[in-house]
Amino acid sequence: MKNKVSPKIMSGFMELLPAEQIVFDKMKQIIEQTYQTYGFVSLDTPVMELSEVLLAKAGGETEKQIYRFQKGDADISLRFDLTVPLARYVAAHQNDLAFPFRRCQISKSYRGERPQRGRLREFYQADIDIIGSEKLSVLADAELPSIIYQTLKNLGLDRFMIRLNNRKVLKGFYEALGLADKQVDILRLIDKIDKIGVQNVMEGLKDLGLDEKACAQIKGLIEIQGSSNEVICALKELGVQNDLYIQGVDELEKVAQAMINLGTPESHFKIDLTIARGLDYYTGTVYETNVIGHEEWGSICSGGRYENLAENYTDRKYPGVGMSIGLSRLFDFLRGANMLRIGAVTPADVLIVPMANDTRYALKVATMLRNAGVKTEVYFADTKFKNKMTYANKIKVPYVLILGEDEEKNTAVSLKNMVTGDQQTVVLGDLIPVMEEAVLARPPEKPVFQKA
Amino acid sequence: MKNKVSPKIMSGFMELLPAEQIVFDKMKQIIEQTYQTYGFVSLDTPVMELSEVLLAKAGGETEKQIYRFQKGDADISLRFDLTVPLARYVAAHQNDLAFPFRRCQISKSYRGERPQRGRLREFYQADIDIIGSEKLSVLADAELPSIIYQTLKNLGLDRFMIRLNNRKVLKGFYEALGLADKQVDILRLIDKIDKIGVQNVMEGLKDLGLDEKACAQIKGLIEIQGSSNEVICALKELGVQNDLYIQGVDELEKVAQAMINLGTPESHFKIDLTIARGLDYYTGTVYETNVIGHEEWGSICSGGRYENLAENYTDRKYPGVGMSIGLSRLFDFLRGANMLRIGAVTPADVLIVPMANDTRYALKVATMLRNAGVKTEVYFADTKFKNKMTYANKIKVPYVLILGEDEEKNTAVSLKNMVTGDQQTVVLGDLIPVMEEAVLARPPEKPVFQKA
Repeated sequence: MKNKVSPKIMSGFMELLPAEQIVFDKMKQIIEQTYQTYGFVSLDTPVMELSEVLLAKAGGETEKQIYRFQKGDADISLRFDLTVPLARYVAAHQNDLAFPFRRCQISKSYRGERPQRGRLREFYQADIDIIGSEKLSVLADAELPSIIYQTLKNLGLDRFMIRLNNRKVLKGFYEALGLADKQVDILRLIDKIDKIGVQNVMEGLKDLGLDEKACAQIKGLIEIQGSSNEVICALKELGVQNDLYIQGVDELEKVAQAMINLGTPESHFKIDLTIARGLDYYTGTVYETNVIGHEEWGSICSGGRYENLAENYTDRKYPGVGMSIGLSRLFDFLRGANMLRIGAVTPADVLIVPMANDTRYALKVATMLRNAGVKTEVYFADTKFKNKMTYANKIKVPYVLILGEDEEKNTAVSLKNMVTGDQQTVVLGDLIPVMEEAVLARPPEKPVFQKA
Repeated sequence: MKNKVSPKIMSGFMELLPAEQIVFDKMKQIIEQTYQTYGFVSLDTPVMELSEVLLAKAGGETEKQIYRFQKGDADISLRFDLTVPLARYVAAHQNDLAFPFRRCQISKSYRGERPQRGRLREFYQADIDIIGSEKLSVLADAELPSIIYQTLKNLGLDRFMIRLNNRKVLKGFYEALGLADKQVDILRLIDKIDKIGVQNVMEGLKDLGLDEKACAQIKGLIEIQGSSNEVICALKELGVQNDLYIQGVDELEKVAQAMINLGTPESHFKIDLTIARGLDYYTGTVYETNVIGHEEWGSICSGGRYENLAENYTDRKYPGVGMSIGLSRLFDFLRGANMLRIGAVTPADVLIVPMANDTRYALKVATMLRNAGVKTEVYFADTKFKNKMTYANKIKVPYVLILGEDEEKNTAVSLKNMVTGDQQTVVLGDLIPVMEEAVLARPPEKPVFQKA
C-alpha cells in the first residue's frame, strides 16, 4: 500500500469548515453589497505582481515578510496589501477610468509573519477607496466612515466606535510648538497611549527632550474629549497660529458634520486626537475602529487620506482616501468570542428524502422548488430512512420533505420542520406558497451578534 | 524627480476594467447562486499549499508549470487546480463532514504556461463536486450536468451541448475486443477525432497494429449517434459480452433518464462515444461541453466520475463526480466574440448631482435611497454642471438626480433618465416608489447573449 501524505495546510493559513465558511461568505457578501450600495465598483487584481512594480516603495519590515520568488526570468511577489495594487491599477488605466474613482476590493493578501491570533499569513481585507484626479473633496473623508458604519451595522455589530483624527492638526500643532523635527518620535509615542497610558507617554516626551511647557500643551491636546462639536470648539479655543493646524481643524469639522448628515450617529464615531496611524503615508484624516468591549482586538477597520497614491508609477497626482476592514482577522476574533451565528452546514433550505427507489417524483418536486428560488437538495443514497434523517440532522437543513409512495399517489409531500419537529402533509399545488412563507419571506439573520 | 516604475502586470494575467469586471462578477455570482440553489456549499481553501501535499500525485507536464518556491523552511506551491485541494480538504476534515459532501469552489488557480488566448497563468475555475463516503449514487452523475445546464442558461448561453460518455463502456468494449493493453493509445487517438477526423483516426488505429475487423468495430462504436435512447439501444444491440461494458451502458442509460427527469432538455445534452477525457483519473461518466457555433473554443465545462478522490491522503475511499467551468477562459472567449453585455462602469443605479455648495439635502436624499435598496452615488466635486454630467455619462449610470435650490425649496428632485434623456420633477415623497419602479422592478439582464 502506498504511503499516505498528511493532508495538512501550512501554519498561519485559515481554512474553514462548511458551517463557518457559510458565515464568512455571508459577512463578505454583506460588506460587498453595502459598498456597492454606495456605488463602488469591485476590482480583482492579480495575486502576483512583478517585484519591481509591487516593491517600488516598500522596504524594511514589510519587505522581509513578502512571498517573493523567481519563475523563469520573472522576479515575482505576492501582494501584501490591496493599496499598492490599486495604485498600480490607477496608474496603468488612468486614461480609461472616471474620477473620482470609487473602488472596493475584498481579496486575499499574503505576509510571511510569525503566526499568532489575529496574524494570518493569508488574509482577506475588505478595502474601500475613493481616488480623485489632482484633487478630491473632503466630503469623501466623511463618506467612507459613514459607509463603514453602515457596513458594520449590517454585519450585526452594534457597539463599535469609529475614531477619527487629522494629521494636519497634529503636524500643525507640533510645528507651532517648534517641535517639527521631533514630530515623528512624538507621534510614535502617542500612538502607544492605549497600551502604555498617559503617564508613560509624558515620561517619554520628557526623554525626547521636551520641556514642561511643551509636555503640558501636548497633554492638553490629547486629553481633549467630548462630542465632535465640543472637540472642534476646544481645538479652536487653543488658538494655535498655524495654517496647517487651522486647515486640519476645518477638515475635521466638515467631516464630522457631513458624517452626521450621512446618517452616522454620534454614538458611533468620535474625534480622538491620540490617533496617528502609520507615519509617512497619511496626510489628513485618519481612522481607527474598535469594537466596544473588545478593545484588545485593536482596530478592526483603519485608514486615512493620502495625497499621492500612484507617485511611484506616474507624475499625475491622485489624492485619495481609503479604509480597510481586516476581514479574516475580524472573523477570527469574532469566532473566538462566540459572536458568530454558526448554524447550517448547507445553503439548502430543504432536503428532499425520497422513500421509493424510483426518484422521478423527487426530481420533479426538486425542480419545481428550485425554479421558485427555494434552495433544494435531494438525498439520493439508497439507505435506511434513519440514515437519511441522520444526514439531515448533520447538515442542519431547516426543512425536510419526505416523499413516500402515499405522498406520490396523493401528489403531496410530508413537510418536516427540523427545528420544531412539526410535520404536515402539503398537497403539491400548495407547496410553493408554503415554502415561500417558510423560507423566502424570513428576513436573513445577521451573521454577527453582539450582546449589550 | 524620482524615476517612475512602469505599472504593468505580468503577461498571462488578466486584469479587467470596471465595466468588464462588473460583467465578470455577475457571471461568477450567477454560477455560485445556481450551485447553491442545489445545496452546494462554497469552499475557500488556501492558494498556497505545502509542495509535498499538493504534489503528492502530480508529475510530468503539470509539475513543470507549477509556481513553486521556498520561504524559510517551507517548500510551497500555488494550487494548479481546485481538485487536489478538495481531496486534501476531504481527507483532513473527513470526520467533520457530512457525506455525500456537496461542495463548489470558484477560485483562482495558477499555471506557468506559455500565455495564449484561452491560456491564462492565473485563472478562475468554477468547480462543483459531490463526494460520497465509500459509495455514491449514479444519480449524482446526472445531477451535475443538469446543474451545469441550468447554470449556463442562467448566464445567458442558449445554444450549447453537454456531451457525455462513460469510460466503462469504452474500457469494456476494448477488453471484449482483446485490446485491453492498447486502450490508452486508442483512447488518446479517438480523443483527437474533432481535430483530425474519422479517417485519420482509422489510419492511426491501423498503425497501432489493429486488424480490419477491430478497426471496423471501433468505427461502428464511435459513429453511433442519435437521441440518448437511440444510442443506448444501439449500444445494447452491439451485444458486447463484457461486464464492464454492460455496467457502463446501464449507467449511461440511468444518467440520461435522470437528466431528463431533472429538467434538462435533450436539445442540450447527448451521449457522444468519442469523448474520453484525461486518461488515468476518470473511471465512469465523463463530460464535455461546447458552445454551438464556437466549437473552436473547445470544452467550456468538463469533468467526470472518479472512484478514489483522496487516495494520496487517506485509506478511506471517497468516490466522487465533478464538473468545472473554465470561467476566466470562457469570459475571455465571450469577450473576444462580443457576446458580453458590457455596460455601466458603476454598480450605482443613481448619481446624485448637487448644484448647491450645501450638500446636506443631497446627503439626505442619498441616505433615503440607499435605505430603500437603491444603489446611490453622490458627486461631491465642486465643479461646473457640464463636468458633472460628463462624469455621469462616463460611468454610464442609468439615472441622474439633479438637486438645485429650486428642487430643495420644493422638497423635490429632477430625475433624468440617461438612456432616453427624459427629465421629470419628482416630489421627495414619491421618489422611492418611482425609483423602485425604474430600477428595482426591472429584471436583471443576463451577462451573456448568444445569437441564434
